[in-house]
Amino acid sequence: MAYPSQALLDKLATMLGPKGFTRDPADLAPWETDWRGRYHGKAAALLSPASAEEAAAIVRLCAAQAVQLVPQGGNTSMVGGATPDGSGSALIVSMRRLNRIRSLDAAAGVAVCEAGVILSDLHSAALAAGRRFPLSLGAKGSATIGGLVSTNAGGTQVLRFGPMRSLVLGIEAVLPDGSLFEGLAALKKDNRGYDLKQLLIGAEGTLGLVTAASLKLVPAIGERAVAWIGLKSAEAAMALLRRLEGALGDAVESFELVPRSALELVLRHVPGTRAPLAEPAPWNALVEAVSPAGMPAPKLHEALGGALEAGLVADAAIASSEAQAQDLWRLRDSISEAEKKDGPAAKHDISVAVEQMAGFMTEAAAAVEARFPGTRVNAFGHLGDGNVHFNVRAPEGAGADWVDGEGGAVSAYVHDLVTQAGGSISAEHGIGQMKLAELARLGDPARLGALRAIKRALDPANIMNPGKLVPPFDLAQDGLAQNHLPS
Amino acid sequence: MAYPSQALLDKLATMLGPKGFTRDPADLAPWETDWRGRYHGKAAALLSPASAEEAAAIVRLCAAQAVQLVPQGGNTSMVGGATPDGSGSALIVSMRRLNRIRSLDAAAGVAVCEAGVILSDLHSAALAAGRRFPLSLGAKGSATIGGLVSTNAGGTQVLRFGPMRSLVLGIEAVLPDGSLFEGLAALKKDNRGYDLKQLLIGAEGTLGLVTAASLKLVPAIGERAVAWIGLKSAEAAMALLRRLEGALGDAVESFELVPRSALELVLRHVPGTRAPLAEPAPWNALVEAVSPAGMPAPKLHEALGGALEAGLVADAAIASSEAQAQDLWRLRDSISEAEKKDGPAAKHDISVAVEQMAGFMTEAAAAVEARFPGTRVNAFGHLGDGNVHFNVRAPEGAGADWVDGEGGAVSAYVHDLVTQAGGSISAEHGIGQMKLAELARLGDPARLGALRAIKRALDPANIMNPGKLVPPFDLAQDGLAQNHLPS
Repeated sequence: MAYPSQALLDKLATMLGPKGFTRDPADLAPWETDWRGRYHGKAAALLSPASAEEAAAIVRLCAAQAVQLVPQGGNTSMVGGATPDGSGSALIVSMRRLNRIRSLDAAAGVAVCEAGVILSDLHSAALAAGRRFPLSLGAKGSATIGGLVSTNAGGTQVLRFGPMRSLVLGIEAVLPDGSLFEGLAALKKDNRGYDLKQLLIGAEGTLGLVTAASLKLVPAIGERAVAWIGLKSAEAAMALLRRLEGALGDAVESFELVPRSALELVLRHVPGTRAPLAEPAPWNALVEAVSPAGMPAPKLHEALGGALEAGLVADAAIASSEAQAQDLWRLRDSISEAEKKDGPAAKHDISVAVEQMAGFMTEAAAAVEARFPGTRVNAFGHLGDGNVHFNVRAPEGAGADWVDGEGGAVSAYVHDLVTQAGGSISAEHGIGQMKLAELARLGDPARLGALRAIKRALDPANIMNPGKLVPPFDLAQDGLAQNHLPS
Repeated sequence: MAYPSQALLDKLATMLGPKGFTRDPADLAPWETDWRGRYHGKAAALLSPASAEEAAAIVRLCAAQAVQLVPQGGNTSMVGGATPDGSGSALIVSMRRLNRIRSLDAAAGVAVCEAGVILSDLHSAALAAGRRFPLSLGAKGSATIGGLVSTNAGGTQVLRFGPMRSLVLGIEAVLPDGSLFEGLAALKKDNRGYDLKQLLIGAEGTLGLVTAASLKLVPAIGERAVAWIGLKSAEAAMALLRRLEGALGDAVESFELVPRSALELVLRHVPGTRAPLAEPAPWNALVEAVSPAGMPAPKLHEALGGALEAGLVADAAIASSEAQAQDLWRLRDSISEAEKKDGPAAKHDISVAVEQMAGFMTEAAAAVEARFPGTRVNAFGHLGDGNVHFNVRAPEGAGADWVDGEGGAVSAYVHDLVTQAGGSISAEHGIGQMKLAELARLGDPARLGALRAIKRALDPANIMNPGKLVPPFDLAQDGLAQNHLPS
């Protein structure tokens, strides 16, 4: 690690021009803190390249002097993945000016987007061409393609289309030595050695700077059917999902699980919401089935009728208008907001094998509540992906400091349980800074050794997003759970 | 590289027992030559571990003495990827005894297979459970899961289900330091750092020894519809594919392109075949559409009727029985055999972006035939994947030595053309030994540098399948195309 010399800064300023280079503290400030306000760093300058060539030149110049770079897209990381450390020695490389959709071929179903393209802009462009980019999430108005690729983002349509990894057909990236990897060609088959594209997806900018990606587009939505379904247990929800997949095939795009406690939080704290079913059910599923344009509507009504007769479903409400569908989705999308209004919680983004999730949720919730009396587990989300937000609400009356106190022990315990079940302590949010110590503590030594070896091999000077994703060797010695670092 | 000491061999013999260790030349011989008979090597012993633990112990013992290991499954590589060099210093590690299907969960759609499970055995086991493993290829009676994973195998169903990479949910592997990477958990979402599973897929055993894989199963086939379609041009075939996908969605599983010349070779050389259409067409497509069990049959007949009315299709024959469907597939599957009987040819397994393939085939064929008078291009195969077998038949009367003579220059020229088009010189067969020099000659320097760095990082002693896949640095200096090494 080295502080950038004045000569280097001058060279970068000249190369990038006033739109591409600033050291003004007011310009830097918004990008030195993560959006949740938990991580605060300092950067020596903010660089905004306008082309892949400028990005490559930045990396070459900085690599020569071992100056560290922190790549940034929309700055919407959930784990402090795009915030520099406090030393003030790093340069933030914002990809937001690289925001062209270079091409969009509706017939081929391929869009080539630069790293700074905002997700909702790609949604609009695809729709205008009669297609759809089938990945969406809450931060779609800020999150950029480069960030989504680098974090292998998930969202609510992973059930059918997979995470970002399944939608990336090619990548252009600046490697840590400043060379440009030109891998944008959308080849369905290519066996020319290790798949560098796959290595860069989810690497959180630690192996290079993604400058563009070729992305898969799918047919636009013809009709969608949305239903809210009351169920007796999480296991019944899983059985319902398999039944619906049997009846409707690929049409089932979303299957979100909502416990009664989460729905009640929403109804209590979010104005304008109302209960979708006459009788509250212990568990609920929000299901969306979709047909491509020009194809028959998905037969969700019939499929649910069969499940009702079979006794699998307690009650169901099917949206009869787009407005009703949006109301049902709002119940699901407001859970985090409602939980926040209700009080502090320790949040976990975990996954296990899909078939195990229903059982895991029930058993792990009982174990946590027994071990930490007064806590209340609120686990909800993407049951069909084996991924839930396993949040543990503080005992009633606890203050905000609970999260960094007992909350830390709760998180370590939850991560222990999910690791014992063969699952992941980071399903979709990544590691960033926040989960680095937990990955060091719980990661398979063979895996950790390989991660470190790959990082050292491709970025020997450790200039690309240092301190993220790859636990340094000495962190493994540190027995404490540090996933809630003081902010 | 080191010859194994007598002490090491004794230790291995004791550990593995008589079923797991042999130095008998008669036992070794079949595995020292590739099945096409082009590569001949020598090994010091043949090791056959019966468990992942034994495999790990082998790697640990050999790593300590820098003894090289050549992993082998069914020995069906098309590129010499599993044949040792001629020094006699390497040990072949056969994975064929590791042949248990550890579990098969029909509801979850997951089978956990050891590396030595033969592909057709997995097909049978899945079918018996009402499911299907949707990857198949000619060598299915010998090819093993470990080899299919390590080569990211393709086949005839990639159009719908993708190559092996899309079907691998988890991997267990011995890394080059002898540690066991336990990544079998079939997590749909997992963002705990670089995806080692993806790195091992297609690594041809150069980064470790795959001992087991969790594989995706899909619903069993309900009904299939198979048609042979006559077309005016390769471009018309592409337009037909997009039209069928619009009408039938995911039901289209295979779309194979066959030029008139290829069909004529089959009719001439393969007994019992007959022309599927009354009038021969310049181009033909073999299409298969499939519905899952319990779902309505795919409406291929109606979709083709529409294409006929629109003037896109010249003529079509739809199989009205399973026997007829098999006869149509036999025409496609016999092309390689017929070509071989007809005379020598330089064969190429190439890909470009799907939308470019029809144009590329036409233009590249004209360029090759102009530059090498008398040659005749016979390009056929997976049009919907952007992958064809672009074979160039020798001028009439040429001897078998043509392949290693002018054929080498033809291959270099074909690889130049495909590289200029942004495509791949290895779509599905891999690099192995055969294409190493061509990858060195044509590979993007950024990509080659990264491949070498990763290999050095994970296998510093170069013990895992040395001389395959990763071009050594000095090979890049060698300007000659050596893709047809003397056998």
